[in-house]
Amino acid sequence: MEHSSDVSEAYPMNSGDGPNSYAKNSTEQRVVVDATKELLSKAIKENLELDIFLPFNSFHIADLGCSVGPNTFFSVENILEAVKFEYQSGGPSSEIPEFQVFFSDKTLNDFNILFNSLPQNRNYYAAGVPGSFHGRLFPKASINIFHSSLALHWLSRVPKDVMDKNSRAWNKGRIHYSNNQDEVLKAYQAQYAEDMECFLRARALETVHRGLIVLNLLGRPLNCIEIVGFNIFGSSLLEMARKGVISEEKVDSFNIPSYFVSPQELEVIVERNGCFSIEILETLPQHVLSGAPSAPAMRAFTEGLIKHQFGEEILDDLFSLYHQKLEEQMSIAESKKAVVLFVVLKRKTN
Amino acid sequence: MEHSSDVSEAYPMNSGDGPNSYAKNSTEQRVVVDATKELLSKAIKENLELDIFLPFNSFHIADLGCSVGPNTFFSVENILEAVKFEYQSGGPSSEIPEFQVFFSDKTLNDFNILFNSLPQNRNYYAAGVPGSFHGRLFPKASINIFHSSLALHWLSRVPKDVMDKNSRAWNKGRIHYSNNQDEVLKAYQAQYAEDMECFLRARALETVHRGLIVLNLLGRPLNCIEIVGFNIFGSSLLEMARKGVISEEKVDSFNIPSYFVSPQELEVIVERNGCFSIEILETLPQHVLSGAPSAPAMRAFTEGLIKHQFGEEILDDLFSLYHQKLEEQMSIAESKKAVVLFVVLKRKTN
Repeated sequence: MEHSSDVSEAYPMNSGDGPNSYAKNSTEQRVVVDATKELLSKAIKENLELDIFLPFNSFHIADLGCSVGPNTFFSVENILEAVKFEYQSGGPSSEIPEFQVFFSDKTLNDFNILFNSLPQNRNYYAAGVPGSFHGRLFPKASINIFHSSLALHWLSRVPKDVMDKNSRAWNKGRIHYSNNQDEVLKAYQAQYAEDMECFLRARALETVHRGLIVLNLLGRPLNCIEIVGFNIFGSSLLEMARKGVISEEKVDSFNIPSYFVSPQELEVIVERNGCFSIEILETLPQHVLSGAPSAPAMRAFTEGLIKHQFGEEILDDLFSLYHQKLEEQMSIAESKKAVVLFVVLKRKTN
Repeated sequence: MEHSSDVSEAYPMNSGDGPNSYAKNSTEQRVVVDATKELLSKAIKENLELDIFLPFNSFHIADLGCSVGPNTFFSVENILEAVKFEYQSGGPSSEIPEFQVFFSDKTLNDFNILFNSLPQNRNYYAAGVPGSFHGRLFPKASINIFHSSLALHWLSRVPKDVMDKNSRAWNKGRIHYSNNQDEVLKAYQAQYAEDMECFLRARALETVHRGLIVLNLLGRPLNCIEIVGFNIFGSSLLEMARKGVISEEKVDSFNIPSYFVSPQELEVIVERNGCFSIEILETLPQHVLSGAPSAPAMRAFTEGLIKHQFGEEILDDLFSLYHQKLEEQMSIAESKKAVVLFVVLKRKTN
């Protein structure tokens, strides 16, 4: 039960329910939840084995990186609906189980908001689990279905070399990787592979045999590396440094700890881990995501990081500059946008 | 999965970690945790059956009415230590299980504070469960040991008749019951019996067969009915009404939703429920509790109620008046004080 004090542990999605909160700025994520609903039902229909272990007939679901809702509640409802349907269709011998749902996110996530907005008419027992999904969160073999939506692109930390002036991967003047030849990219890739191995190793212990992991991942098509939104965001910060509002050095040492994986890379990582079979790995149609996050969306998930590095004063100006630049470059952003990968893994029985 | 919107749902212990918070004003509760440590170890030694059901070798503990810590962490450590010792002493065949601990309190409890103060070096998987312990909180047969310390005296609501001007139990000019002949007392007793039946009915479903419920209850010796602290608190409110600071009508309609049970009454309630055997029911030595809660302690657990009924403005004056009156009547308070009951119930196998 490790407790990291790394950068991403410290800055979850914007808390509370104010105008800049994640709770009020997560409609794009909702689109993904809705877009994957049918895939999810189909995946559960085809992959859920009704004879998997249910201690005392109770079915356990965990949503990792749930943030504060309401998207996590929609995801959970979709899973529940599909699982119940399978038990109902399973013939007279398959009684519908009781459900316990674990909502998990980092310790600094706003669990008070989450708990107070739980659906009143829910048909499950709810629990919150604080901690990083890169480590252990649950007892052995205690979860039947894991779910995570648009959370696994967050790294456990900024790759070390990217912050090191003496490294070839030092990321001066940028806040993210942005091309194929790049040592920065390699450092991010290595960190992602390491983090995903930690994730899979922990989940392999926690998932019941033949249990499922269902993921919506932010990824990229093979032919596209850069994340245009972060490029624009980086150039907004640089412009503020040029104007003397913030220091250039602080921009040099600032990096967004997230990585967008390709389907091919993910396959390699899962196979290297060895505990899960890949049942589904498909790319959602591109229209599901916009070209880059809107200014309020970008603010909801980077405000904590920005505040910590540059102070609160720059927030309004920074995001209005980002908004302006994004408008100008929308067509580039649309042509190079990230994709959502829909992934279903099944725990092998060894 | 009912969700009551009653008065006690709405006002948990004072949140946050400021000077008036429960987190900073719960040392008296800590004394009880420490005083029962030895009893608890002995109770677990004598009553824990090592062959009770552990799904995949994971042992589940739930603390009900946990508030924000740190007392709940001490209680849980005491239980863990005793349970581990039993498994260690159980011979080579009894492997020490993994532990999952559920911290449960009302939805408005400050789970953010709770999660952020979880012990760093804990040897268990932690989860938070929002909801009232008068209803269902967990799947069937999923908990091995329930614990609750100084929480079950809180009623799910103020008894209806006590608020009804046309009832013989109308509690004009007081905020609690205060004598034996009292219709008010009867209304409180009936509410307590009803609430405890709800509690036991829910726990009977949630406890594994031969699992345990360990309780520290605020109770009373048979020969003593009134709770001096509440009497003094009530007379402080009345004095403020006489001075015109608050309205008398508001004092009349204000009542503290808590009941202090006698060992004899509790026995009747548990036996009527029928699902648990009483393994231990003993009264702790009187020195464990002071005569009445200090002003900061009283504030920590009634501030929410008071704010709602009378407004925030009166808080400082009210509690300083209470403090003054308490000093004057300390000897009465000491002679008529509440007691702590230590109770261990075991789930019958039917």
